[in-house]
Amino acid sequence: VAVDANGADLGPREVAAGAAMAAADGVRVLVFGPAEEIGDTAGAAEVIDAPVSIAKSADPARTVRSTPEASIVQAARAVAAGEAGALVSAGGTGAALAASLFNIKRARGIYRPALALPLPTPARARPVTLLDVGANTEVRPEHLVQFAFMGAAFAQAMLGIPRPRVALLSNGEEAQRGSETVLEAHRELARLTGGSGRKDSAAALLEFIGNIEGGQVPTGAADVVVTDGFTGNIALKLIEGVSGTVLRAIRDAALSSPRSRVGGALMRPALGSFRAAIDPEAQGGAYLLGLRRLGVIPHGRFTHRGFAQAILRANWGAADDLVERTHRTLHAAGALKVSPVPERPGAAAGAAST
Amino acid sequence: VAVDANGADLGPREVAAGAAMAAADGVRVLVFGPAEEIGDTAGAAEVIDAPVSIAKSADPARTVRSTPEASIVQAARAVAAGEAGALVSAGGTGAALAASLFNIKRARGIYRPALALPLPTPARARPVTLLDVGANTEVRPEHLVQFAFMGAAFAQAMLGIPRPRVALLSNGEEAQRGSETVLEAHRELARLTGGSGRKDSAAALLEFIGNIEGGQVPTGAADVVVTDGFTGNIALKLIEGVSGTVLRAIRDAALSSPRSRVGGALMRPALGSFRAAIDPEAQGGAYLLGLRRLGVIPHGRFTHRGFAQAILRANWGAADDLVERTHRTLHAAGALKVSPVPERPGAAAGAAST
Repeated sequence: VAVDANGADLGPREVAAGAAMAAADGVRVLVFGPAEEIGDTAGAAEVIDAPVSIAKSADPARTVRSTPEASIVQAARAVAAGEAGALVSAGGTGAALAASLFNIKRARGIYRPALALPLPTPARARPVTLLDVGANTEVRPEHLVQFAFMGAAFAQAMLGIPRPRVALLSNGEEAQRGSETVLEAHRELARLTGGSGRKDSAAALLEFIGNIEGGQVPTGAADVVVTDGFTGNIALKLIEGVSGTVLRAIRDAALSSPRSRVGGALMRPALGSFRAAIDPEAQGGAYLLGLRRLGVIPHGRFTHRGFAQAILRANWGAADDLVERTHRTLHAAGALKVSPVPERPGAAAGAAST
Repeated sequence: VAVDANGADLGPREVAAGAAMAAADGVRVLVFGPAEEIGDTAGAAEVIDAPVSIAKSADPARTVRSTPEASIVQAARAVAAGEAGALVSAGGTGAALAASLFNIKRARGIYRPALALPLPTPARARPVTLLDVGANTEVRPEHLVQFAFMGAAFAQAMLGIPRPRVALLSNGEEAQRGSETVLEAHRELARLTGGSGRKDSAAALLEFIGNIEGGQVPTGAADVVVTDGFTGNIALKLIEGVSGTVLRAIRDAALSSPRSRVGGALMRPALGSFRAAIDPEAQGGAYLLGLRRLGVIPHGRFTHRGFAQAILRANWGAADDLVERTHRTLHAAGALKVSPVPERPGAAAGAAST
C-alpha cells in the first residue's frame, strides 16, 4: 500500500505511526512524506522522502500536473506502476482524486469514480455505505446507475453483506419523486435488476429497493445509498454536524445541574460504548471506487489508529481484488460503459476512456 | 385564518382542538373539515362542513382541480376570496401547495413559491430557516436568489432577526464550490448585495455570507439557508432522522445497565429542557412563501398544541403583512421577476404570472 503522509491535521508523524501499526500487522507499506520529519516513527514501513505537499491546493487538477514531486503524485505513480496495490491519502480529497485520475486512471467501462463512505449507525451492526460523497458535483443518470453497482460490490467485499439492499436518495419514497436525473436512474436500475433478460445475474448481486428519504439513511433501511456528489457531501456533513450538535447539547445538559452531573457520570460508560459504535476511524475513511486500483481517503483529523485502519482496509481491498469484483458486477448487470462517450473537458483529468 | 382539518395523523378533532386554542386567544378561525366528526371540539372557531379529504392524493395538481369540494380547496378559496388572511393545512403538503397555487396564486414578481422551515437548534435561541424544503424539485439560479430574499423577509418578520445572515447550502464553503445552479445564484446574490448600485437597500436587508456546508446548518452559522427543494427535503429529513436516531441510541444506552439507568433518571429533567428547546411544534410547521397570502403547513403528526401554534403564527404573519414585506424586500434588491418568463407546463399549476 502506498501512503501519502502529507496533509493530516496531526502531521506526517501521525500518519507514519499508523503506517507502522499496519506494517507490524504484516502489510507492506510505502510512506511518501517528509523523511526528516517522520524520523523513525514509520517503524517497519518504508519511507520515500517526498516533502512537497499539495493537500491544500485550490486547483488540484492543475497542481497535480505541475507538481510531479508532490507526495500524493509520487504515491499515485507508485500504485500506477504496480509497486503498490492500493493508495491511501491523508491529504486533501481534491488532490487525491486528481492525482488518482491522472495516474491510476479509471477502470475499464467506468464513467466516473465515486467516493463511498461507510457510515456507522447506532441502529445496526454494519455501516450504511453512502456514495457519492463529493467526487462528482453534477452527474448523469448512468453515473448513478454505476454508483449503485460499485457501492454494492464494495458493501459485499468490504462489509460482508451478501446481497446489499441499494436505494436512491430522494425527496420522497415513491418512484415518481425526485429530480429528472434520479427518476431516470430509478427506471434504469429497476429495469436492470427487474424481470427483463439479465434478471438472474443483476438481481442476484443486489436488491434495488427504490427511493429512500433522508430520514431513512440512519435507520439502515438500505445497505447502500446512492446520490450525486453535491447532495451526498451535504448529507454526510449534515449527519456529522447533527450528531455532534446533539451529543454536545446532551453533554451540556449533563453539566447543567449537580443532579444531572451525577447522572452524566453514571451514564458515561454506556455512552462510551455508543461513541465507540459510531467511531468514524474504525471504518478507515472514504473509499475511492472506479479506478484501476482502490484508493482510501481517511479524514484529515484522524489519529494513527484511523490511518492504520485505512491502510489495513486498502490492503484488504487490494487482496480481495475489489476492482475486478466491481467490474464483474457491472458486466453482469450490463451497466458498463460500452462505447466511448464524450466527456466535458477536464472532467476526467486525462483518464483513459476504457 | 382558514384551516383545513383533514389529513392530520391524530384526526380532524385534534386540529379542531388546536383551532379552539387559537380562537380562545382571539384569532378568528374558519375550520374546513367533517363537521360531524369535529362535533364541539372547535370551541369558538367556526366550522364549515367539508368532509372530503384529498390529503393523500398521488397527483395533487389534478385532484385539486377535479375536487372543488375538498376541504383544502375550500379553505384556499376562502383565503383567495379575502374571507381569511392566511391558510393553515394539516393535510398533505402536495395538496396544500397545489390548492394554494391554483386558488391563492403566486405573489407579484415571484417565480416560484417555496417551503421554509424554521429549524430549532440547541446551539442558539433562534431557529435556522431552511428553504426550499420540498416545493421545487428542480430550480433555476433566479429561483434560489428569490428564496434568499423571501427567507430573509420571513426571518425578519416572524423570528425577529433584524438583518439575517443568508447562505447557500453547498458542497464546500469556497465561492467556486457547488453545482452550476448554486455557482450562478452565488454570483448574483454577491452582486445584488455587494458594491454595485443598489448596495444600500439590498445589503441593508440581509448579509449574504456565501456558501455553507451541511455541517454548519445545525451550528447556526447562517440564519437563513437556501437550497433547492430536492436537497432541502433530503437535508430536513436527515436532520430529523439523525437527531431521532442519536436520542434513541442514548436512551438505549441509559437502559443498558442498572448504573446507567440511575444516571438516565437523574439526567431526565436536563434532557427534558433540551427536548423542549428543539420541539418542532413550537415553530408551527413549514411556511409556504411567495403566494399572495401566507400558508402554514404543520407536520401531520403534530398535536393540538402544534396546530394552535401554526394558526397563531399564520395570523401573526397576516397581521404583519409578511407578503407585502417580502415584496418590498425583493423590489429593493432588484430581484423581482420583471418580465413574463415561460414556465414548464404544469410547473406552476395554473398560477397567474404576475
